[in-house]
Amino acid sequence: FNARQPQTIRLYPLSNYTFGVKETQPEEDPSVIARLKRLQEHYAEHGMRRTCEGVLVCHEHNHPQVLMLQIANAFFKLPGDYLKPDEDEIDGLKQRLDERLAPVGSLGEGEKPVDWEVGDCLAQWWRPNFETFMYPFVPAHITRPKECKKLYFIQLPQAKVLSVPKNMKLLAVPLFELYDNTARYGAQLAAIPHLLSRYNFEYV
Amino acid sequence: FNARQPQTIRLYPLSNYTFGVKETQPEEDPSVIARLKRLQEHYAEHGMRRTCEGVLVCHEHNHPQVLMLQIANAFFKLPGDYLKPDEDEIDGLKQRLDERLAPVGSLGEGEKPVDWEVGDCLAQWWRPNFETFMYPFVPAHITRPKECKKLYFIQLPQAKVLSVPKNMKLLAVPLFELYDNTARYGAQLAAIPHLLSRYNFEYV
Ligand SMILES: [Zn+2]
Ligand SMILES: [Zn+2]
Ligand SMILES: [Zn+2]
Ligand SMILES: [Zn+2]
Repeated sequence: FNARQPQTIRLYPLSNYTFGVKETQPEEDPSVIARLKRLQEHYAEHGMRRTCEGVLVCHEHNHPQVLMLQIANAFFKLPGDYLKPDEDEIDGLKQRLDERLAPVGSLGEGEKPVDWEVGDCLAQWWRPNFETFMYPFVPAHITRPKECKKLYFIQLPQAKVLSVPKNMKLLAVPLFELYDNTARYGAQLAAIPHLLSRYNFEYV
Repeated sequence: FNARQPQTIRLYPLSNYTFGVKETQPEEDPSVIARLKRLQEHYAEHGMRRTCEGVLVCHEHNHPQVLMLQIANAFFKLPGDYLKPDEDEIDGLKQRLDERLAPVGSLGEGEKPVDWEVGDCLAQWWRPNFETFMYPFVPAHITRPKECKKLYFIQLPQAKVLSVPKNMKLLAVPLFELYDNTARYGAQLAAIPHLLSRYNFEYV
């Protein structure tokens, strides 16, 4: 019962990954209003903002888990960020993932820099106006969305060292915890179980 | 901004499709309890039930719409049904779509039988127990789900005659109406905007 499905994806246990700590990465904007104002300036100069985020999946005794960052013990987000105006989409995503998660200092020493394996686009979210709402489609009569955010499946290697900024926590959140939990995780993260449901996983 | 995305999909206007009426197709089971009991018998004999449904998409002035059936002015469902135990998945889905929507009598006369174009698997839903709940993942410690339902994108041709059983209505529901509307459409249909968000559409 597997017609028209993507290739089975191999997931490794959470314990295969090593987590270190690196310097604090303060929020670029002090408030939501400041963030939307900066988006407005960016839009005037460069047009629609392009944002890329990675969905990194591992497992704990055969339950898939998504790696996400928790900031200041409050809100959750996926690793990734917006691209520079002329930046290539995949190269830019890899750089944003490195900025957030690549090991630094002695923790990274033995490691050869592993290239991120960027898989399928899982979803697109559009911001129609300079407001906080985003939708998984371009709303009616919006011809120029202000931002498009893409989520990509990231195939994790068998083992990897990751370093997390001091002001963030990296959490492995099981699908059943995300599912139907918009209240805690927001609409975008709570939809991830839907986006992954067409994949079959192999747990090693 | 289109890396790692599926090919752009062409959507045709709703007005390209012609809708006729055919004989009533009564519900196979008189109640939810009867349906779950029949599932239990099927499971004992043949193992996990396989169900296939089609997501048929068109547009109305550039807003994507999903075709769905409304039964007895009450609940909504996608065209499709469960497969016979030994039936091929794609052949079986095409047959279920024909049973529900293929034209009959004079309406179908000029028509050459158009083969359904079955695209990507969009989602899988699992029923862990002989109960109404389904999840877009196999819940923890469930080794033998009782049913797996797959949703497939169906690429509609430029024009087509469809016949709808007398006891059902075929509705074209816009994505913004489905989105975040679990109360009216249920968890499975309300998730369709998420499942389609990675596609870019071309409206002709
Ligand atoms: Zn700029
Ligand atoms: Zn309109
Ligand atoms: Zn049977
Ligand atoms: Zn467990």
